[in-house]
Amino acid sequence: MAVLARLDRVRAHVHAASLDALVVTHLPNVRYLTGFTGTAGALVLLPDRCLLMVDFRYATAAQDLIASLPTGAIVIETVPQTYDAAIVDVLRRESSRRIGIEAAWLSVSRFNAMSSGLAAGTPTPLRASGPTPVLVATERLIERARMIKDAEEVEAIREGGRRISEIARRLADFVAPGRREDEIAAELDSAIRAAGFSRPAFETIVASGPNSALPHARPTGRRLEAGDSTVLDFGGIYEGYCVDLTRTVQLGAPSAALRQLYQAVAKAHEAAVAAVRPGVRPSAIDAAARDVLVQHGLGEAFGHGTGHGIGLEIHEDPRIGREMPGLPDAPVEPGMIFTIEPGAYLPGTGGVRIEDDVLVTADGCELLTDAPQLMMIDL
Amino acid sequence: MAVLARLDRVRAHVHAASLDALVVTHLPNVRYLTGFTGTAGALVLLPDRCLLMVDFRYATAAQDLIASLPTGAIVIETVPQTYDAAIVDVLRRESSRRIGIEAAWLSVSRFNAMSSGLAAGTPTPLRASGPTPVLVATERLIERARMIKDAEEVEAIREGGRRISEIARRLADFVAPGRREDEIAAELDSAIRAAGFSRPAFETIVASGPNSALPHARPTGRRLEAGDSTVLDFGGIYEGYCVDLTRTVQLGAPSAALRQLYQAVAKAHEAAVAAVRPGVRPSAIDAAARDVLVQHGLGEAFGHGTGHGIGLEIHEDPRIGREMPGLPDAPVEPGMIFTIEPGAYLPGTGGVRIEDDVLVTADGCELLTDAPQLMMIDL
Repeated sequence: MAVLARLDRVRAHVHAASLDALVVTHLPNVRYLTGFTGTAGALVLLPDRCLLMVDFRYATAAQDLIASLPTGAIVIETVPQTYDAAIVDVLRRESSRRIGIEAAWLSVSRFNAMSSGLAAGTPTPLRASGPTPVLVATERLIERARMIKDAEEVEAIREGGRRISEIARRLADFVAPGRREDEIAAELDSAIRAAGFSRPAFETIVASGPNSALPHARPTGRRLEAGDSTVLDFGGIYEGYCVDLTRTVQLGAPSAALRQLYQAVAKAHEAAVAAVRPGVRPSAIDAAARDVLVQHGLGEAFGHGTGHGIGLEIHEDPRIGREMPGLPDAPVEPGMIFTIEPGAYLPGTGGVRIEDDVLVTADGCELLTDAPQLMMIDL
Repeated sequence: MAVLARLDRVRAHVHAASLDALVVTHLPNVRYLTGFTGTAGALVLLPDRCLLMVDFRYATAAQDLIASLPTGAIVIETVPQTYDAAIVDVLRRESSRRIGIEAAWLSVSRFNAMSSGLAAGTPTPLRASGPTPVLVATERLIERARMIKDAEEVEAIREGGRRISEIARRLADFVAPGRREDEIAAELDSAIRAAGFSRPAFETIVASGPNSALPHARPTGRRLEAGDSTVLDFGGIYEGYCVDLTRTVQLGAPSAALRQLYQAVAKAHEAAVAAVRPGVRPSAIDAAARDVLVQHGLGEAFGHGTGHGIGLEIHEDPRIGREMPGLPDAPVEPGMIFTIEPGAYLPGTGGVRIEDDVLVTADGCELLTDAPQLMMIDL
């Protein structure tokens, strides 16, 4: 019944924002609040009810889903034509006036269509007697709740972390001189499925030699060579929840430049993990890693953030990065789960990244992934 | 140099809409116009230049990309902090006044952030002397161009169709009583990669027995049984382009009800394919399939549309479905590629769907996928 507690929590935020209704169109948010896993759907959260809107394709699945909940907790509405028209019809029927929308996820097109639908549907006498319905942009209303994982979520991610770590400990079996990046990526994907994940959480990265200097390289037909550093960044979705892990495997002796990258990134990773505890701002965790790299003369070589939240999505709040105007940097809290993934990249030479997933605890953090940080393969 | 022709075509539309600039934020559209394949990026199309905006992670890849184009055709701008701030900076620098945005893809949050950034950045004297910059919602500006595939695109999809068809012809090797849906799906995914696709184009559907009545079921642990119809819906991405194919495999003798579904869906599929030629409205192609199913008393059992465009995305224009207010239904043209996928679903009994990909030609259509329509396995 975790979804009922989540619905209550979000409904309190909706009430606090003086909204009569919240239209939830971002699917991971719909899933969070209902358990619905379809590829289309929407939720209209009213003061006293929660309407799950699905089309023909998902009517049966949605009915099965709510059968396990107390009667009336979630009500299914089938969408006859388009979602937007159906949402407008519901809001008219309910005479909702201040209607929250998810500004980060609703497109300008859909916003405009709903706005004019609501305006068109307000009969003249009602317009005279009360305010016209208005769509209110809300930001991160459900995402803020999702940052703090509940027991069920922690359990899913902990188990996912355990399973992805088992694969990480076997990386030496996947990597060898002469093997192609894309071949290794396909084998990792198979291993991820075989480990009980429903699928990889994102497109697996296998970047070797010069390609390892591209933080988000896609696997190519390049064959690994002695001396290469190879960045392997992969994850899986377990019971709907994402885990994410990176290790860099060294084939044979590293060059002096690469050796320095390994040492600096390992220290940066250690410093960031040590900085994680309730009350610390994400930007301070990022600074812990970044300062180490700067001290090693690698400040410019670390161009991305130190981490990101994981959960129903592979990238979610909190963002663990430099303080930036307009972006949230609220102190981390127990129950948050995010990656710690410093890296350093030297074009032409190669790159190193080490990534683990951590759960913020009452007084520090718990590592949810566990594999040797540095993997050197003697040739 | 296909991208240069595409840029010219879209720039003409931008000019016709009296826009000084078009901000392209939908990644498949960025890819279409530049060849850029990163997971983040944006394009600002100006009257005389095209700025590809990428962050640190993709700077190297973007430089490599434009190296193959005539000098200056596309210029790279590196994004120092957020994309929206960088886009606003460019638009200010260029003194753009009427700025098109992609309303279907830009979120309300980003629209608001860009709007206020542009307003804040306009110095008071300039505001007095000229109009404030305004963001203009555009719809389907690039999508309309993308509907008509050029020679390079047709070749990629034709080859993808050939490769996915080879897998479809071997479906009897994957399906047998006692095998699990999720196990078959994983094997299909491996076969898709082994056939040279970069990855499956969507989550492979294997839906057996009663599950086959759910048009978008996800593979479960259910084991196939004698008498089952099993819907297998799968696709791959070949050189960036999606193909999509469905066959329904019958294990052992079908029930009388299933037999009727197979016959009706095969006829509906045949009627829809026969209806495809330039000048015909998508709703008429849909009606060709739907009328057959209605004649068989299966109108209610066919709850989805007859097809959808494929290309850089697995669902794109044109939509082959019933005429609906507000949705486009312009006649199909040579060079369009879409699926034809009628189905019929009887809850409790099972479902049947047959899907092929077609290219509209000068006087009809070419089937890009080719496998036996009905696959009956004797037990």
